[in-house]
Amino acid sequence: MIQTHLIEINQLDIASLTHLLDRAEYWLHNTVISRQINSLLHGCVVANLFFEPSTRTQYSFTVAAERLGAIVLNPQLSHSSLVKGESLLDTARTFVAMGAEILVVRHSAPDIMEELVTYLGERTAIINAGAGSKQHPTQGLLDLLTIRQQKTLGPGLAVAVIGDVLHSRVARSLIDGLCCVGVNDIRVVAPEEWLPSAADLAIWQVVQPHAELRSALTGADVVVALRIQTERMQAADQVDKIAFYKTYGLTEQTLRYAKPDAMVLHPGPMIRGVEIASIVADGQQSYITEQVRCGVAARMAVLEWCHLPP
Amino acid sequence: MIQTHLIEINQLDIASLTHLLDRAEYWLHNTVISRQINSLLHGCVVANLFFEPSTRTQYSFTVAAERLGAIVLNPQLSHSSLVKGESLLDTARTFVAMGAEILVVRHSAPDIMEELVTYLGERTAIINAGAGSKQHPTQGLLDLLTIRQQKTLGPGLAVAVIGDVLHSRVARSLIDGLCCVGVNDIRVVAPEEWLPSAADLAIWQVVQPHAELRSALTGADVVVALRIQTERMQAADQVDKIAFYKTYGLTEQTLRYAKPDAMVLHPGPMIRGVEIASIVADGQQSYITEQVRCGVAARMAVLEWCHLPP
Amino acid sequence: MIQTHLIEINQLDIASLTHLLDRAEYWLHNTVISRQINSLLHGCVVANLFFEPSTRTQYSFTVAAERLGAIVLNPQLSHSSLVKGESLLDTARTFVAMGAEILVVRHSAPDIMEELVTYLGERTAIINAGAGSKQHPTQGLLDLLTIRQQKTLGPGLAVAVIGDVLHSRVARSLIDGLCCVGVNDIRVVAPEEWLPSAADLAIWQVVQPHAELRSALTGADVVVALRIQTERMQAADQVDKIAFYKTYGLTEQTLRYAKPDAMVLHPGPMIRGVEIASIVADGQQSYITEQVRCGVAARMAVLEWCHLPP
Repeated sequence: MIQTHLIEINQLDIASLTHLLDRAEYWLHNTVISRQINSLLHGCVVANLFFEPSTRTQYSFTVAAERLGAIVLNPQLSHSSLVKGESLLDTARTFVAMGAEILVVRHSAPDIMEELVTYLGERTAIINAGAGSKQHPTQGLLDLLTIRQQKTLGPGLAVAVIGDVLHSRVARSLIDGLCCVGVNDIRVVAPEEWLPSAADLAIWQVVQPHAELRSALTGADVVVALRIQTERMQAADQVDKIAFYKTYGLTEQTLRYAKPDAMVLHPGPMIRGVEIASIVADGQQSYITEQVRCGVAARMAVLEWCHLPP
Repeated sequence: MIQTHLIEINQLDIASLTHLLDRAEYWLHNTVISRQINSLLHGCVVANLFFEPSTRTQYSFTVAAERLGAIVLNPQLSHSSLVKGESLLDTARTFVAMGAEILVVRHSAPDIMEELVTYLGERTAIINAGAGSKQHPTQGLLDLLTIRQQKTLGPGLAVAVIGDVLHSRVARSLIDGLCCVGVNDIRVVAPEEWLPSAADLAIWQVVQPHAELRSALTGADVVVALRIQTERMQAADQVDKIAFYKTYGLTEQTLRYAKPDAMVLHPGPMIRGVEIASIVADGQQSYITEQVRCGVAARMAVLEWCHLPP
Repeated sequence: MIQTHLIEINQLDIASLTHLLDRAEYWLHNTVISRQINSLLHGCVVANLFFEPSTRTQYSFTVAAERLGAIVLNPQLSHSSLVKGESLLDTARTFVAMGAEILVVRHSAPDIMEELVTYLGERTAIINAGAGSKQHPTQGLLDLLTIRQQKTLGPGLAVAVIGDVLHSRVARSLIDGLCCVGVNDIRVVAPEEWLPSAADLAIWQVVQPHAELRSALTGADVVVALRIQTERMQAADQVDKIAFYKTYGLTEQTLRYAKPDAMVLHPGPMIRGVEIASIVADGQQSYITEQVRCGVAARMAVLEWCHLPP
């Protein structure tokens, strides 16, 4: 068998993506909700190599792997041999030599995943848990899974994404996934400096940039508020948070532009009162908690998909 | 079934407290000492959310939960999404959505536990692992369990607590527990600025403040030396450590004021030569190591008590 | 039964050392390569007490202990009660009281291990995972195991060690191990300030110091490049890295001085282009990755050897 990796949503055709969503739905009902343990990965070592911190994603993978019976390693890489001058590739190679069959990697460099696949990928699965500002494929999967619990994924679905699309690997992976399943009404709305580049829009032909929240949300079935990733911005790109909330914040009032049964999503961590009003985040249309639950299921599906039987 | 939480000792009546101590004693003999594993929490996710560091308490809960077969999460919350602006409640909610059925929480804010119970407590157990300077109920339980191995808990037992009672959630939880089981001879001894407030003394009617170690220890069956929590004190409350040891340090000599078979306790971490002399800490009357062993058993009892069967 | 500890290679006679290598070889083939789980340490708590960070060694022990079914604790000791003034011995004693039967300890102080054995060693196994600049016995074992997969350990084998021997516990443990199994041709080569002391050379009678790489490597069966441990050096001992590489770096060219089938080892983390050329580190003669794999097996053998049955 050939080793499988998950590096970006775009590597998947609609059949593979649908298969992963089906398996995620299976795990959602058969382990996540029923709180059971499976032995699919018994004896398998999964190493979470988070060179950028992310409690949410790291522990979502941890729960997913533990529910499948794996041995999970969560080294603190900031305190590590990297400090002693070792290369990232050598750190990863060390975990493989210790027996890790699956590496779950988050790193600020966008091209690190391809390097890991090239040098280690023959018998080790590489799962991208967030790379630079480019890709975060398991987030894309969990967003699609969350939407699919309520709506039909495909033509006719209108999805609006609010905020810092340019710096967001979450937005990129979600949009790639929506395109893959045939969604053809995707709106992005943000201050001009955060809208996708002309090159991206040329690729995503179905993505419409908007300057105003009202037009972007009108008729939307799904509204995704993004996190403002100040840590990824240059000083020149910084935005006044109060001004942002006034113009682009997802509030009870602005949500009314969307369909009455529109789903509200946010990848977290949320900054309430900047990206989203608390009353919306905690309201009946919010599926933000459901996204986290679906995240565990989606990651179980990916771990299963990447696992080579002994 | 209704979800149970452990927020403070005072929520327990004598029957519940005795039940917890009985179960802790069971676990002490049947898993902690015999080094076995039980499957009571198999498939259950326990998240240790320590917003204040405490190796001792965190790993005591970890061993307790692992011995019961749980999946234990120990995220590093200082490196986390809190830094990205997320609220504590949203962090906790995320772990619940990932599948955590039990949250073990330590935080510097005294009222955080009630907030967690209000928003997440319907189907998630909240266990207070130390909140502000108010409560640390599992510490109270382990202290009672340690004493109960040697002495009868109830009227006739004399307990002296030395040191920073005002800032100590350990002292508060222990005194609440002693009051609950009917101990009516409790002495606290410290520099005036560390004695309990008049309001506290009005509630704890059986607590006698002392200024001198000799009178406080005379006839005591149990002597508890507290940790000097310089990290919780204002500059004005800081105490000269050498002067403290001279007047209030528990030494071979001052211990002679107590009964010859008095038990010596300290919640740890100890500062030898400030709070307690090494010869006392390591002596035959010391039950400090036994407290740590009882801590694992007490936490197993609490985890069991809070766990809803599937 | 008497509790066993592993503090230094020199405590082992050739029979014990050979037994450990045989068991390590067993685990290498029966769990590490076949990716299985054993239940030898089921219910046993192993605490990794790393007062100095080392991702590589800590997670090697973690995988080893998890493959044997243990409960593994990886506390963050920099965030711990040490900060609150607790002694190392009290921290260790706390983990023992929680139920840890095996302590895996790394610390910068060279004599800490003997202190732990004295105070805690009667019923708790102490495993040295790196102490000061003196000993790192499991590294010595894994190096011997790696060599033994390819060569006969004993008289006739020529081993060259390049670099900072003076500050290297890796070098010391390896040389002790080689001496134990009767290897009598050991060369060390480094700038003068890094060569072993006269006292050490008097003990290691078979060790020959060299100033030039060529003479040290000529006829060598095994070439070990050490890490330059700048963190252990005084300012006066610091060495110009470019100058070091030029004179002592292990490159394609300098490796030709050794036998054509010479094995190349490095304990990691490597600094490529300073201690070793990438083409050598990744070349056909390199067993650096194999060392990491053997590390897990060697640590399984040590855990087994130290474990008292219940």
